[in-house]
Amino acid sequence: MARIKPHKNGTKKDLITQKAAALFRLKGYSSASMRHLAEEVGVEAPSLYNHIGSKSEILQAICFKVANAFTFYLDSIDIKYAKCTTLLESIIRFHIKMMLTSFNEVYVANHEWKHLKEPYLSNFLMQRRAYEKRLMEIMEAGMQAGELKKTNAYISVLTILSAVRGLEFLPARKKDISNAELENNMVNHLLKGIIK
Amino acid sequence: MARIKPHKNGTKKDLITQKAAALFRLKGYSSASMRHLAEEVGVEAPSLYNHIGSKSEILQAICFKVANAFTFYLDSIDIKYAKCTTLLESIIRFHIKMMLTSFNEVYVANHEWKHLKEPYLSNFLMQRRAYEKRLMEIMEAGMQAGELKKTNAYISVLTILSAVRGLEFLPARKKDISNAELENNMVNHLLKGIIK
Repeated sequence: MARIKPHKNGTKKDLITQKAAALFRLKGYSSASMRHLAEEVGVEAPSLYNHIGSKSEILQAICFKVANAFTFYLDSIDIKYAKCTTLLESIIRFHIKMMLTSFNEVYVANHEWKHLKEPYLSNFLMQRRAYEKRLMEIMEAGMQAGELKKTNAYISVLTILSAVRGLEFLPARKKDISNAELENNMVNHLLKGIIK
Repeated sequence: MARIKPHKNGTKKDLITQKAAALFRLKGYSSASMRHLAEEVGVEAPSLYNHIGSKSEILQAICFKVANAFTFYLDSIDIKYAKCTTLLESIIRFHIKMMLTSFNEVYVANHEWKHLKEPYLSNFLMQRRAYEKRLMEIMEAGMQAGELKKTNAYISVLTILSAVRGLEFLPARKKDISNAELENNMVNHLLKGIIK
């Protein structure tokens, strides 16, 4: 039986998770089977179970990997910068980078989280709400400090997160736009607008 | 057998289309059956076929109703205003209004179009691409006229359309934000940014 070859920089579980993210994105979590996944990894299905417990466990791994990446990033910068605008800019750039570098994982976390089982489903939603709340607090602190215009913080956060999420509609043929150009355009648009 | 009651301001077909849009959004086009739809409309399934030919025909009706609404709106304003910024503002406001007033239809056109059959699938995509191209042209004209900052028009259009589309994530509990507040916040954010 073929052995699972790990990625250069990852464990076997990482490789399985990565292949699963691509598969879940293309087929949807419900339609993707462990047999499909085994084919993608290049092994017999039973071999997968040496590394992961179930399809559901893989979905958990993907969703929390993404959620944790955002939370940890926010933790890491929260105290570094004094200005809320700098904080916000850096958060938007991180979101765009995640969309560009971990596309499958972010897509699955965005679309397939609803298939998580309890208590993971509640935990995931709680973590996401807490994250959005922290973004709103940064926004409100920025308004108080006079750095940001007075807006409804909830709508501003929704506008930013939705715009960035829209990168999932970036068609392959548009990949001639460099990541840097894309990131700078979107960040400037969302912070400073497009009107001169 | 129960008769199909038409809406006050619409035909029987309109009522069926409306109920179908809600059903397709909740269940997804593939999982929604004509039996489900008949239940929602409150009649026996065979009665439906007096008004519409097939499930596929309803999806066509929904997708093209939405696509045409956007195209016709653009046609109606394209020459009225001299300034590109005014044009853009009015387009963004129309998109937000469509999301708020025809939520199910817009959601289905955004998510379920891929189930359209040919030649409708190609026509729909062509119409959507043509629409996006016109938005980019307005954006570029605005840059040339010195009204708008120099950006990558493709990314700016993607940013705007994605942000507006994000209204589908507006949770029911946030319905305390008035439509006017929501619209004004989002329009100002997308045109003028949030930094003071």
